[in-house]
Amino acid sequence: MGMTMSQKILAAHAGLETVRPGQLIEADLDLVLGNDVTTPVAVHEFRKTGLTRVFDRKKIAIVPDHFTPNKDIKAAEQCRMIREFAREMGIEHYFEVGEMGVEHCLIPEQGLAVPGDLIIGADSHTCTYGALGAFSTGVGSTDMAAGMATGRLWFKVPSALKFVLKNKPGRWVSGKDVILHIIGMIGVDGARYKSMEFVGDGLAHLSMDDRFTIANMAVEAGAKNGIFPVDEKTVAYVQEHATKPYRVYEPDPDADYDEEYEIDLSTLKPTVAFPHLPSNTKTIDEVGEIPVDQVVIGSCTNGRLSDLRTAAQILKGRKVKKGVRVLVFPGTQRIYLAALREGIIADLVEAGAVVSTPTCGPCLGGHMGILAKGERAVATTNRNFVGRMGHPESEVYLASPAVAAASAVTGIITDPAKL
Amino acid sequence: MGMTMSQKILAAHAGLETVRPGQLIEADLDLVLGNDVTTPVAVHEFRKTGLTRVFDRKKIAIVPDHFTPNKDIKAAEQCRMIREFAREMGIEHYFEVGEMGVEHCLIPEQGLAVPGDLIIGADSHTCTYGALGAFSTGVGSTDMAAGMATGRLWFKVPSALKFVLKNKPGRWVSGKDVILHIIGMIGVDGARYKSMEFVGDGLAHLSMDDRFTIANMAVEAGAKNGIFPVDEKTVAYVQEHATKPYRVYEPDPDADYDEEYEIDLSTLKPTVAFPHLPSNTKTIDEVGEIPVDQVVIGSCTNGRLSDLRTAAQILKGRKVKKGVRVLVFPGTQRIYLAALREGIIADLVEAGAVVSTPTCGPCLGGHMGILAKGERAVATTNRNFVGRMGHPESEVYLASPAVAAASAVTGIITDPAKL
Repeated sequence: MGMTMSQKILAAHAGLETVRPGQLIEADLDLVLGNDVTTPVAVHEFRKTGLTRVFDRKKIAIVPDHFTPNKDIKAAEQCRMIREFAREMGIEHYFEVGEMGVEHCLIPEQGLAVPGDLIIGADSHTCTYGALGAFSTGVGSTDMAAGMATGRLWFKVPSALKFVLKNKPGRWVSGKDVILHIIGMIGVDGARYKSMEFVGDGLAHLSMDDRFTIANMAVEAGAKNGIFPVDEKTVAYVQEHATKPYRVYEPDPDADYDEEYEIDLSTLKPTVAFPHLPSNTKTIDEVGEIPVDQVVIGSCTNGRLSDLRTAAQILKGRKVKKGVRVLVFPGTQRIYLAALREGIIADLVEAGAVVSTPTCGPCLGGHMGILAKGERAVATTNRNFVGRMGHPESEVYLASPAVAAASAVTGIITDPAKL
Repeated sequence: MGMTMSQKILAAHAGLETVRPGQLIEADLDLVLGNDVTTPVAVHEFRKTGLTRVFDRKKIAIVPDHFTPNKDIKAAEQCRMIREFAREMGIEHYFEVGEMGVEHCLIPEQGLAVPGDLIIGADSHTCTYGALGAFSTGVGSTDMAAGMATGRLWFKVPSALKFVLKNKPGRWVSGKDVILHIIGMIGVDGARYKSMEFVGDGLAHLSMDDRFTIANMAVEAGAKNGIFPVDEKTVAYVQEHATKPYRVYEPDPDADYDEEYEIDLSTLKPTVAFPHLPSNTKTIDEVGEIPVDQVVIGSCTNGRLSDLRTAAQILKGRKVKKGVRVLVFPGTQRIYLAALREGIIADLVEAGAVVSTPTCGPCLGGHMGILAKGERAVATTNRNFVGRMGHPESEVYLASPAVAAASAVTGIITDPAKL
């Protein structure tokens, strides 16, 4: 029986001809990633090995993005600890505030994730790099420690779900709507420990940013990873960014999938996930009148240039509704600068939004936009669990940048087509 | 005996012909100000009065700027509480995130402080508006509550110190250097409960932004208020911003001052306040080699357009020293937008600085740039007390935007003239 894209990458990194679902393997890692929350724990575990060097100082990336710029003394101490570790070990890819961004926006932009890579990150949304045809998955801090020590990690080979995307999505339907639709369809455990493999002629209509968004939220369906084939858009992206060679893995013609779903993108509508699960979706015409106190545009899910561009297209020449707080978080410094040069930032600020430094900030209830009791946010982020963005009695509605920006104008969750 | 500028304003607002130092008076207030830290306490006290309305809904300003965008649930709850109070009372000048800024940058820009005003604010740096020829002073939250309830407050009339500023300062000497020099000279209690009145031909060489910086830090010498005469620069500023009539008060020719200091601005050098007191000053040539981990440019002291412009002049085409975190906080949304349009923000980001939403943030150790143990910051802020910006074993060096920006390039506290 043939292998999926994901299985082929795992096999190659394990030095095996073939692997089968459920098989336990040990594989070589191309990149080990951590942030300011997870790396301190990993460093603590790494110290227990007694090792004085990491397996490869070019294959580790540390990105302080969750509670930075330092929220408080605890955050400052965590960053100091990982900064000192990075210096001591000579880790090349430590990204200081000012160089950095939200890790899953930053790593591809810096060319540190390329097609065919096997990547682990101590952050659940590490699955983002599947957009580039890499096998990329979130792990715990102890696995990060093991990865830093040995450059290898064990995996249980996942089976896969196949999503055949067809046709062209409508004007206001983005990658976010595609993945919210899918999660709504299969549920938050619908892909548990499986690969989500996206194929089909519809991919030609999805930008790299759309694909990053879709792969990013694979974990919200419980997936081990999400992955896209490499096409000319991927190659163009990689040629612009990559700092290392890449390799393309295609699924075998007889690859086995647990399920196959066909999705006609032309029939999708802007989609909103209601509290308190990403699978609790409604299409925009089913939403009803939901007033919001805060709008968040950004995060590893939707903080890329095209996301900000979409928001600015809607907000340009309009005004944020009085009493609504609109917070924009560009994913990286480079995205921020590109948005500046395009006039996007000026359009957003003139409309009444505030633009932050890159940070995960409110997405995880970290800082920079925490909700009070009873408050509601529409957010382009990835999770809307109870208390995710603040008070346990606050609510988060997940949506695309277009829906978020339209909602900023009206103060209620709004279809951008109806503005 | 004649009266000083400050005494004349107090007398007029108390309905008295004359007042003398030490006299207890009750005076009418033109503006009562609070922020997200102090207003909740004031609201709590106000509720005890049983009143259902404030004295004048046009004469109260509430600016959530200290822990906003909401740092955490506590901050979110504080903001919710004051927002609801503002709505209930119909307070006109409640500034939501997106409209707002650091209160002492925002209030003059919004035309809510004009010459001749008597203003209290539940924030120590309320003395800033003395730059406009207003009597303006920080009070506690209970006084804010009394002010909101009655529109009046008691004052003990202060005596005054006279600072005669002469001649033109050199290229890199700003208002910040002038006030640091003065505080270094008279000490942090050198003006305790007195007015600091600034006069002299040197004023012609100080921009409004310089004067805001000087008046802002009057409280760091223990002053009740700092005040400037109204000249053509003041009038130009007021004509651009004011939303209400103003009145100019000049000191009587025979006004009495406890002390008179003559300061030749042409002899001043860029000045740095070492830990842990604003009075612990050295001139830039006496500083020696002080490495810094973080540079903060912003705050109610130095977050205005000319401050950002100066920083950008130095950073444009240069790069922030590797390993140094440079955080820029525009004072208001309007300042941010003006800086965007001038290309200042792009210059700062290209150099490797990050630009935040307007917030008091790290200045008070609030959020967005807290220092870890042993870390050092050079900051354009106003206080460098033990632990002010984070860990009790961190250090803050106060300086001008020019010195801060130059230090960002080299990683050590640097004379901008020597870059």
